[in-house]
Amino acid sequence: MTENIMARILNFSAGPAALPLAVLERTQAEFIDYQGCGTSLIEQSHRGPVYSQVHQEAIDLITELAGVPDTHQVLFLQGGASQQFAMLPMNFLPEGGVGSQLVTGTWSKKAYAEGKNVAAACGASIELANPNGELPSAFVDTQLGGQVSSNAAYYSFASNETIHGVQFGHEGSPWPEVDAPVFCDMSSDFLWQPLDVSRFDFIYAGAQKNIGPSGVVVCIVRKSLLERGRSDLPTIFQYRTHAEKDSMFNTPPTFAIYMIRNVLEWVRDEGGLSAMKTRNLRKANRLYDVIDSSDFFNCPVERGCRSTMNVVFRLPTEALEAQFLEESAAQGMSGLKGHRSVGGLRASIYNAAPYEWADGLGQFMTDFAARNG
Amino acid sequence: MTENIMARILNFSAGPAALPLAVLERTQAEFIDYQGCGTSLIEQSHRGPVYSQVHQEAIDLITELAGVPDTHQVLFLQGGASQQFAMLPMNFLPEGGVGSQLVTGTWSKKAYAEGKNVAAACGASIELANPNGELPSAFVDTQLGGQVSSNAAYYSFASNETIHGVQFGHEGSPWPEVDAPVFCDMSSDFLWQPLDVSRFDFIYAGAQKNIGPSGVVVCIVRKSLLERGRSDLPTIFQYRTHAEKDSMFNTPPTFAIYMIRNVLEWVRDEGGLSAMKTRNLRKANRLYDVIDSSDFFNCPVERGCRSTMNVVFRLPTEALEAQFLEESAAQGMSGLKGHRSVGGLRASIYNAAPYEWADGLGQFMTDFAARNG
Repeated sequence: MTENIMARILNFSAGPAALPLAVLERTQAEFIDYQGCGTSLIEQSHRGPVYSQVHQEAIDLITELAGVPDTHQVLFLQGGASQQFAMLPMNFLPEGGVGSQLVTGTWSKKAYAEGKNVAAACGASIELANPNGELPSAFVDTQLGGQVSSNAAYYSFASNETIHGVQFGHEGSPWPEVDAPVFCDMSSDFLWQPLDVSRFDFIYAGAQKNIGPSGVVVCIVRKSLLERGRSDLPTIFQYRTHAEKDSMFNTPPTFAIYMIRNVLEWVRDEGGLSAMKTRNLRKANRLYDVIDSSDFFNCPVERGCRSTMNVVFRLPTEALEAQFLEESAAQGMSGLKGHRSVGGLRASIYNAAPYEWADGLGQFMTDFAARNG
Repeated sequence: MTENIMARILNFSAGPAALPLAVLERTQAEFIDYQGCGTSLIEQSHRGPVYSQVHQEAIDLITELAGVPDTHQVLFLQGGASQQFAMLPMNFLPEGGVGSQLVTGTWSKKAYAEGKNVAAACGASIELANPNGELPSAFVDTQLGGQVSSNAAYYSFASNETIHGVQFGHEGSPWPEVDAPVFCDMSSDFLWQPLDVSRFDFIYAGAQKNIGPSGVVVCIVRKSLLERGRSDLPTIFQYRTHAEKDSMFNTPPTFAIYMIRNVLEWVRDEGGLSAMKTRNLRKANRLYDVIDSSDFFNCPVERGCRSTMNVVFRLPTEALEAQFLEESAAQGMSGLKGHRSVGGLRASIYNAAPYEWADGLGQFMTDFAARNG
């Protein structure tokens, strides 16, 4: 194990992202002969008892950790959050109706654009929930949920924006309070802290940031909402299809769901979501403290809505940013380049990233500033 | 390695299915630290150089093995073949147009039903290509492709039906010859033998039978067809979206594609598709020979269209079938139960199943018949 830890780089990738080393080691150990069943888990029929147990355990762990109430159901879907950007309005936007979308960064902006594509096909519309119904000039302000028309079929937003580093659901940036069914893209901060599922009608999260590999989307859906969805869509695009078959309407991405099971057992064993929150805040504070205590670094995001998952920051010049990337890579750190659409630097520190990684980066930042400030 | 082989059961699952042991061993060995990069492959950003190379190698291997011409493009999508059942008519069935579907078993029947759902929404229709435009009473006859209306936007069929054990594209059951763009669901026999891609306009194949794990669909699409697809659909459901971004429009299922790369390197190293064909025919013949040389076993499928991938057979009574399942399981064989919709027994022997598995099953069948006949 020591050998693995030593060889491991500090992986700050925005996603697919680092997984807990203990989970990788467990997965590797049982990869060829899963629990003595004579095959790999990846070779098991999705209808057989071996995989069925894994499937149920993954659902049970999400239910237990997130406190999913009986009013809601957990689903595993495919196609990423991007497919939900289309499927949500397809299912829940009635002809001539209005859906409300808050835009706080690149991902909710994509949801807005795809929602408009769907709305155009059914004579409906998507309104911007942002103040004055306008896109903000920059996604760095505290966003307070905006306004929703009284007839909106739903209100949709992203809890965390990976590219812009803004987040809801913590001190300074509370959850939006609106009078409509609430749909939330939690792809980049699902299960980072304890969660009140009952305030949401549809949560969806691509797994590849906080809870597993790419290729599967976890949804937590209010059952009464499912019943109201359109029934004149292709079968595969109706959420009820997947709910009725417990996410086994067609072959699920079995290995990805197995990895979620393994990651969430690790989360549980580490102390659950309260422990994750403590750990994640400690990591984020370590980095924001370096940024705020130096004129060399600048975080463009207002303090109140800064992300605990994706810490974005700038250096005085782009030349220094390039030098920072080069030198940090030589120190075994990767994934620190900001998204090409915004530039700068970004450290993604999801559940699996140990405190030591944030500490190592923080120390490097301090040293770099001292040498180049 | 000997230990792994000894512990391994004879896995006849219809899918997700057995993978080559050498592929599992390679994947296990490099699971935590992929080629010295300091992370698992499953933790690598899909935009980074490490995964990008894997992605391209998987495309290159499909191109090389299947002889994909410049007129066609390889795509990796999500949602299984079932999602293509909806997306194909959504993209290529014009308003008021006609799509043609041949139904030879459960899977093409599902494609037919979903096609009708899509057609209903755009004032189009799906016609049955089967003789007389009628569903056959049983899916056990040699099917010769049926008739297609002269104005059909496309002709769609499944090359192999896993549940009914019927297959096209071999001696006795040649490829359909029709005058329309040809769409083929090759989920259960993709790359089992050399292939003339140029006769198809759209091939799609869920990976979990012949070439990898569940969670990814390989498509080989004629580029000129892509250009003709509807452009008023949600972005994510237009094939051109994925073609333009080389299957990186959104995060692909990276680990599943990596597994395809590993499996197809093994196929290449084993001698490519000609070697696979020889190996697959030898396995299928081993089992059909036992069936045909005994009155104890019965294959309900006409000889001409029997599947080389899924050998279905019956015993004299259901009680004997249950006994067969129990005793074969005690001998380390699994996945032999026929699909619940048809009963009986089924041995799925995709590329990865070694000849020794077919031989072991064949021997067991002969012994069982001698003891119970």
